[in-house]
Amino acid sequence: MSPVTNARVLFNEIPQGYPDPNKTVVYDDSQTIDLDTVALDGGVLVKVLVLSIDPYMRGKMRHPDVKSYSPPFIVGEPISNFAVGLVIRSENPNFKVGDHVSTFAPFQEYVVYKDAAYLRVLENKENLPWSAYVGVAGMPGRTAYHAWKEYSSAKKGEIVFVTAGAGPVGSAVIQIAKAEGLKVIASAGSEEKVAFLKSIGADVAFNYKTANTSEILSEAGPIDIYWDNVGGETLEAALANANHGARFIECGMISAYNSTPYFIKNLINIVGRELKIFGFIVSTLASKYDEAFYKEFPQRIANGEIKYLEDAKQGLKETGQAIYEVQKGLNKGKSVIVVASE
Amino acid sequence: MSPVTNARVLFNEIPQGYPDPNKTVVYDDSQTIDLDTVALDGGVLVKVLVLSIDPYMRGKMRHPDVKSYSPPFIVGEPISNFAVGLVIRSENPNFKVGDHVSTFAPFQEYVVYKDAAYLRVLENKENLPWSAYVGVAGMPGRTAYHAWKEYSSAKKGEIVFVTAGAGPVGSAVIQIAKAEGLKVIASAGSEEKVAFLKSIGADVAFNYKTANTSEILSEAGPIDIYWDNVGGETLEAALANANHGARFIECGMISAYNSTPYFIKNLINIVGRELKIFGFIVSTLASKYDEAFYKEFPQRIANGEIKYLEDAKQGLKETGQAIYEVQKGLNKGKSVIVVASE
Repeated sequence: MSPVTNARVLFNEIPQGYPDPNKTVVYDDSQTIDLDTVALDGGVLVKVLVLSIDPYMRGKMRHPDVKSYSPPFIVGEPISNFAVGLVIRSENPNFKVGDHVSTFAPFQEYVVYKDAAYLRVLENKENLPWSAYVGVAGMPGRTAYHAWKEYSSAKKGEIVFVTAGAGPVGSAVIQIAKAEGLKVIASAGSEEKVAFLKSIGADVAFNYKTANTSEILSEAGPIDIYWDNVGGETLEAALANANHGARFIECGMISAYNSTPYFIKNLINIVGRELKIFGFIVSTLASKYDEAFYKEFPQRIANGEIKYLEDAKQGLKETGQAIYEVQKGLNKGKSVIVVASE
Repeated sequence: MSPVTNARVLFNEIPQGYPDPNKTVVYDDSQTIDLDTVALDGGVLVKVLVLSIDPYMRGKMRHPDVKSYSPPFIVGEPISNFAVGLVIRSENPNFKVGDHVSTFAPFQEYVVYKDAAYLRVLENKENLPWSAYVGVAGMPGRTAYHAWKEYSSAKKGEIVFVTAGAGPVGSAVIQIAKAEGLKVIASAGSEEKVAFLKSIGADVAFNYKTANTSEILSEAGPIDIYWDNVGGETLEAALANANHGARFIECGMISAYNSTPYFIKNLINIVGRELKIFGFIVSTLASKYDEAFYKEFPQRIANGEIKYLEDAKQGLKETGQAIYEVQKGLNKGKSVIVVASE
C-alpha cells in the first residue's frame, strides 16, 4: 500500500488570553505515513480514534522556559492529550491487531509507539462508547473518583458545592456525592446545563452567569466540601460560605487560565474556619486508586448510575474551535475530537 | 479588710485599621472588690499576675454581629485573653491558696471564677518564669507544637520557611524544626530580630522589610513547609517558591488584620504543585496534643533547648500600647502585661 496522509494539529503560537480557534493551533496535512512499512522497532502502530480536549491543556500553551507539572506544547510540533486508538500493527506481544487502547497521543491520525508504556488495552466488557474512555471512564472520571476518595472525608448528610458541574469531572463528582448521601449544590454556565445538573441529582443547581453564587451558598449552605474547577470569585464565595473544617478540593481554576486572576479578599477564612485545601494532579493518585476505579466505575456508567454528556466534534480540523470552547465553557459536556471510525 | 481597687481594661471602640493605643481600649479604676468577702459560690478568687497580648485579639475587635471562631469583645466590657494568676481564696477542693493557675481572664486585677473549668494548676517543676505559661509554655507554644505535629509531615532535610520568626509561635517552630533536622528559612521585621533568629538556629534569616522575600526563597528554597503567620505578599512569595507537594500551615495572616488584604495572584500554584493548605485554631488540637506538650515542652524550655524572647510591659495601663505594638510587629518577643507581683 502506498503512503497515506497523516494529518496533524500543530501548536502554532502561544496565546495571549483565550486561545484563538484559528491561530493557536493549525491543521497540517503535509505528512504521509506508509502503514505497511513504517518501522515499529518492537512497538505498535495505532490508528487514533478519539482525542480529548481538556481545560488543563491551556497550561501547556506556554513558553517552554516556564516550569509546570505538565510539559509545554512546542511551537511547530503536534499538541498532545489523552486518546483512544486502535492497534493496526504490532511487534509487541502485549498488543494485538484490533485491540483498543487508551493512551496519550499527539494530535495526528496515526502514531507509532516504540515504547508502549503509555498504552493500556481496553477490554470494555461493559461495551461503553470508546469515547467514554477519554471522559467519564478515563482521565476526568479518574480525577473525580480519585480525589474524592483521597480528600473529601465525606460524610452522609454533608453539603458539597461542585463547580463546572456539567463537565466530565463535575458531573462525576455530583453523582459520586449523591450516591454517598450528600446534599449537592452545583453550578454551570447555561440553563441547558442546569437542567442536566438537576437530571443527575443535584439538589440545588444554578446558572452562575445569572445567579449570585454567594447568595445561593448562603441559603443552601454552609458547605462542607468545595470541589473547585474555577477559582476566582467563586472560590471567594465558597470561602465566605464554608462550614468550619470544610475541605476544598482544588482540581482547577479555569477563571485564571486566560485572564488576570480575580482578587480574593477573604483568604483569612482559611485560618478562622480551619479549612483544609488540597491541590492535586490525578496522575499522582493513579497508583493508589486506578485499579479500584477501573473495576468499579465503567460498570456504574454502563448500568446508568453515572450519566454524562459528550460534546463530540468530527475531525482534527475542529481542534482549535474545541479548545476555544472548552476554555470559554461553551462546550456541552465532555469535549472530544472524533478522528476516525474504525 | 476594706475593698480595694479592681482596675480593668475595657473595650472602648471598634478600630478602623490599626488599633489606637489610647482609644481602642481604656484603663478603668472605678470598680472595687472586697477580697475577703466577695462571694465565690464554690469557686476561686484569682489575683491576675500576667496577661497575654496576642495577634489574634484583633479579630475579636469587631462588631458583635460578625461571626468568627472566637467571641467578639463587647464595648464597655473588659477585654480578655490567656493569663497566669495566683489563687488567693478557694472554695473548690481542686485549687488551694497559693496555687498558680493558667486561665483565660478578663483584663482586671482580680477575678472570681465560679466555674473553674478554664483553670489549670501549674506545677512548674521546671521553675520557669510564670509569664512563660502565656508564651512558649502556653498558647503560642502549643500552637507551634500541636500544628507542627498535626500538619507538617516534616522529614529530615526538608526546608521550612517560618514567618514572624521572632514571635513566640515562630521561634518555637524554628527550634522544633531544627531539632528534627530541617533547614530553616525565617523572617522578621528588624535586624535585632534577625540576629535572634540566627541565635536560635535559623539557617537563613532575613529582614522582610529590607530584603526581597521571593528572591531569598528562590535562592534558599524551594520550600517544603510554609509556616504562615502573615499572609498577603509573603504568602504569594511562598506559593511562588513552594516545592511540589509542599504543606502550608496557616496559623495567621496578620497582614490582613488591619488593612485591605493583598491581591495574591498565583493561587493557581495550589493545583499545579499539589499543595496542601491547613488552617487551624489551636484549641481544636488541644485534646490530641496538650498532654504530650506539657510533658515535653516545659522541660525543653528549662534546659535551654527552646529559647524565647519576651517583651513585658508593667501594669494594665500599658495594654493599649501593647496591643498596638503587636499588630504593628513592634514588640520584641512575646508581649505580656505584668499585672502584679505575688
